[in-house]
Amino acid sequence: MDKKLLGIDLGGTTVKFAILTEAGEIQQKWSIETNILDDGSHIVPDIIESINHHLALYDMKPEQFMGIGMGTPGSVDIEAGTVIGAYNLNWTTLQQVKSEIEKGTKIKFSIDNDANVAALGERWKGAGDNEQDVVFITLGTGVGGGIVMNGQLLHGIAGCAGEVGHITVDPNGFECTCGKRGCLETIASATGVVRVARKLAEEYAGGSKLKARLDNGEDITSKDVFELAEAEGDDLALMVVDKVTFYLGLACGNLGNTLNPSTIVIGGGVSAAGEFLRSRVENYFKQFTFPQVRESTKIKLAELGNEAGVIGAASLAK
Amino acid sequence: MDKKLLGIDLGGTTVKFAILTEAGEIQQKWSIETNILDDGSHIVPDIIESINHHLALYDMKPEQFMGIGMGTPGSVDIEAGTVIGAYNLNWTTLQQVKSEIEKGTKIKFSIDNDANVAALGERWKGAGDNEQDVVFITLGTGVGGGIVMNGQLLHGIAGCAGEVGHITVDPNGFECTCGKRGCLETIASATGVVRVARKLAEEYAGGSKLKARLDNGEDITSKDVFELAEAEGDDLALMVVDKVTFYLGLACGNLGNTLNPSTIVIGGGVSAAGEFLRSRVENYFKQFTFPQVRESTKIKLAELGNEAGVIGAASLAK
Repeated sequence: MDKKLLGIDLGGTTVKFAILTEAGEIQQKWSIETNILDDGSHIVPDIIESINHHLALYDMKPEQFMGIGMGTPGSVDIEAGTVIGAYNLNWTTLQQVKSEIEKGTKIKFSIDNDANVAALGERWKGAGDNEQDVVFITLGTGVGGGIVMNGQLLHGIAGCAGEVGHITVDPNGFECTCGKRGCLETIASATGVVRVARKLAEEYAGGSKLKARLDNGEDITSKDVFELAEAEGDDLALMVVDKVTFYLGLACGNLGNTLNPSTIVIGGGVSAAGEFLRSRVENYFKQFTFPQVRESTKIKLAELGNEAGVIGAASLAK
Repeated sequence: MDKKLLGIDLGGTTVKFAILTEAGEIQQKWSIETNILDDGSHIVPDIIESINHHLALYDMKPEQFMGIGMGTPGSVDIEAGTVIGAYNLNWTTLQQVKSEIEKGTKIKFSIDNDANVAALGERWKGAGDNEQDVVFITLGTGVGGGIVMNGQLLHGIAGCAGEVGHITVDPNGFECTCGKRGCLETIASATGVVRVARKLAEEYAGGSKLKARLDNGEDITSKDVFELAEAEGDDLALMVVDKVTFYLGLACGNLGNTLNPSTIVIGGGVSAAGEFLRSRVENYFKQFTFPQVRESTKIKLAELGNEAGVIGAASLAK
């Protein structure tokens, strides 16, 4: 009988679990709340308990699993299986995740950061079509990403490969939390889109619902901006979308010029704007790539949504 | 006894050959003129003849070799071992390089493009210190490069990975031969440096030997620009160097933010400017990278010069 994979997507509010076949089909899934109290010291024991409970429930044995894979926030030492600096989990000191979970479940354990794991998921079962070379960009509160080349995740010397949110797209741009200027994240994250809206609104004189709402002091989200642009053709909102997609297209273009993946997959909350976003990013991507890349690298929307994490995590266990 | 490697660096004027140990030590080297007449149809037969002649000379047998590796201009199909579109060789139609050389020498043959092969060389025996993740940029007539990650060359879906010369560094910049604007190559190649000098000279009003020489209609090279800047502190030349290294630092920074290699190696003719160039690129690299990359990715000058090609080519045969 084929062995199973167990994927875990550890987030600041929930821990998602799934049991998959080797072929990547989800057979069971469940989730628990993430208890970040007491320096996050309950998280790993809760994960172990939940796994053992569900294995008993489904009448499964550790020997039936190839392994467990997990995606986590923070800085991961993939060899040692440790995590540090995951602030939304209250993990500020080194966490021995691998050794504890292996001890508690008797199943082999692998770990990587959440963006890398989502990249693996979209590459394997999502928009990446299981191709050898796939880049994943996630546009959420921040901008992250993961790069698969020659079928392998890239990590780099200090584990920072795939940190596409800190690509400098505008040397004179907004200040970033990382300390430098003009990072993609300052423009194309959910907060970045709103930042661009406020900035352009300052200089905007025409009629615009977005302008009026900003001037009224309303809380605006990136979703509002894209909706006003797409559904109402709001002039200022369209300018914001143009600026955001220009810089996204520039970053995707240079990822294409550098890596020539078969696909650059765009996911995360901001990508809910869908084809309206994708087609505009693609137009700028074409402007910023040389012909062979323009013709061979595709820009696609992510397909797995929330499941990219557990699926990609499971693939770590293969 | 250890088997040997045979590396070939095929260029528009000469073909360089070297016999190496498995450890990468050059034991013999020679070169022949590249005969590009008759649509480059003499090139492969000349290579075969030269190899067989030298094997006889050194009393060596095909069985003593692990293989032959070659770097070539043009578009390479590494699986098929074919080359097309190498215009400086007059190879405009598909060339069956692998099958002919294997038939003519009875030695296993591998091939890749010249920039990738030079990247392998610098990574293995040069500034890359044989690390797993090394990016190589060559600043010559054009700007090319090669990327080694997880110890493997990256090719991408259409073989364009590593084409760092076409990274868009200035969306409003100079037109490039590739059809788009603001490619790194338009600024940081040998001709790019001169282009920047002419552009800045137009708007420059102060005293400058470089300005005077340009106004006199003298032929200026990138070497002249760097010499005037370093040796004479020429004000306009320093401005040109600042602009070139700003964009090189931006491109290296984004390669660092994306890939986090242990080293970005800068080679090619323009890199003869040495530490004067490197230190300035490094300063801008630091400005354009986030802290973990800034602290872990190094900027170095290439160390192998002309031998990077044969050494890297030989490593293809391992």
